[in-house]
Amino acid sequence: MKPERKTLKQIGEDELIRRLTADWPELIKNSATIDNTPWVILGVGDDCAVLRTHNASVVQLLKVDAVCEHVHFLPDTPPERIGWKALARVISDIAAMGGYPVAAMITLGASPDETYDRINKIYRGLTQCAREYKVALVGGETTASSSLFISVTMTGLAERNKVCPRCSAKDGDAILVTGQLGGSIRGKHLSFSPRLQEALWLVEHFKPNAMMDISDGLAADLPRLESANQLHAHIDFGSVPVSEGCTLEQALGDGEDYELLFTLPQKKAKALLSAWPFRLQLTQIGVMSRKPAPKLSASGYDHFIKR
Amino acid sequence: MKPERKTLKQIGEDELIRRLTADWPELIKNSATIDNTPWVILGVGDDCAVLRTHNASVVQLLKVDAVCEHVHFLPDTPPERIGWKALARVISDIAAMGGYPVAAMITLGASPDETYDRINKIYRGLTQCAREYKVALVGGETTASSSLFISVTMTGLAERNKVCPRCSAKDGDAILVTGQLGGSIRGKHLSFSPRLQEALWLVEHFKPNAMMDISDGLAADLPRLESANQLHAHIDFGSVPVSEGCTLEQALGDGEDYELLFTLPQKKAKALLSAWPFRLQLTQIGVMSRKPAPKLSASGYDHFIKR
Repeated sequence: MKPERKTLKQIGEDELIRRLTADWPELIKNSATIDNTPWVILGVGDDCAVLRTHNASVVQLLKVDAVCEHVHFLPDTPPERIGWKALARVISDIAAMGGYPVAAMITLGASPDETYDRINKIYRGLTQCAREYKVALVGGETTASSSLFISVTMTGLAERNKVCPRCSAKDGDAILVTGQLGGSIRGKHLSFSPRLQEALWLVEHFKPNAMMDISDGLAADLPRLESANQLHAHIDFGSVPVSEGCTLEQALGDGEDYELLFTLPQKKAKALLSAWPFRLQLTQIGVMSRKPAPKLSASGYDHFIKR
Repeated sequence: MKPERKTLKQIGEDELIRRLTADWPELIKNSATIDNTPWVILGVGDDCAVLRTHNASVVQLLKVDAVCEHVHFLPDTPPERIGWKALARVISDIAAMGGYPVAAMITLGASPDETYDRINKIYRGLTQCAREYKVALVGGETTASSSLFISVTMTGLAERNKVCPRCSAKDGDAILVTGQLGGSIRGKHLSFSPRLQEALWLVEHFKPNAMMDISDGLAADLPRLESANQLHAHIDFGSVPVSEGCTLEQALGDGEDYELLFTLPQKKAKALLSAWPFRLQLTQIGVMSRKPAPKLSASGYDHFIKR
């Protein structure tokens, strides 16, 4: 097959992103600077981009994320929950970097025949989530689109020495997850609480070496953690916290858990597990290692390949 | 008709945005602060949102903007031009605030059956524009969508005392536009140069009282300038710079000109017109006034009402 005939679903999301962004690091070198250093500290490839600020000990986090009808919600999803989910997903990413949200912009793509009532309720859900997490809504855009989508851009802040990229895991690190995995489709994916206070407590008291949120399922997100660190995740499948009524396969593959996945040295992990002050479950599920690990059988979510 | 049955096209874009964002100013007061003051200086309603930085004399500009198939480009539009346009539109907004771009994030919504070749070429266009205007591409997202869209989030910087919101026009100000208006659909809308260097020169040497870019046509954008300032635009239609081969009606209504529209005191305007160092045309087209002005007959572009 000629390369130009390949479709996105034949290439897959991760490989597509790798190809499309291959020349982006070069753009950073060419971009605006402060003190002869680019503003950008970390570009594509993590939960958020990281930029310098005028204060050397503070960084800015940037993230954009969209929810689309028939992918992230359905025509009969309560519209307030669509709005909540759209904003909460992005707060989850900011939290997973060890930062807190500041301001967001909302892009609405909708058919001109969409009812005002539905859109208004979506925005009520956005506002409710913004109020709860102290996010300022500062702008955005409305545009005609044949399918409904809401895209959220968020800017946040973090102390520079508290930032948790996903690429700083160490050989021997314990792997931990918050909450329980799987079955999100039964409702949690529309009403979850981003783990903001837990993440801020973590980076303050037991700063992880690497952290990300689980949005596409452990089976899809763990390989990203592995490849970012060139390490292997040795998972003790018996210890994976499975949501009530779910199978292990569902816990690995369902996606939309919006829990924290992070690594830190084993000793520190032990101390953390006894100091953890939240009701939210916290579980060690494995160890990062240079040694190859058996492949997971479940595959998690790929936006272009499966549903 | 019951209010909940109204569609977006019955309400129209400007009224929709007014309703959806009515409670947003309150969120700013509730959001993260610096020195007990919210980070947000200017929220919804201008070309960009404006946020404080850790440097009191510098502000951050934030903007998000999407191009959608069948609205901003067509299935047979050269894909490199789609990418160029997607990024250049947002640079135009940053320029219209008196700032310069720093970093951008790209959201791609595409069908899983879309060809890789087309998407790759769109990203080549994005990269080309980013390189030319020194923008770092730092992240984004790909998502399945039944209609192709590219949404661009951009962050920029501006000297605080150089920022040109659209709401500071004064009674008696001259109204000026760069370039020629109308007929953009013949090609300019895909290959325009954002007026970045012109805008930066302007704010440095003849800082406008108010500035915005013309994206939906003078007939749609002038009323926004008027209502933001509670002033009326008295336009001398004979002086409107009309693109070759276009009628005045097209110059007012076509949209996608991506020229600068700004106001400044008449004396300053005279000095500016003789000092203007660019080949790009610069024209005074009218005066802002408290006195009511005759309504324009053309209507410009509304995303939900017409095309």
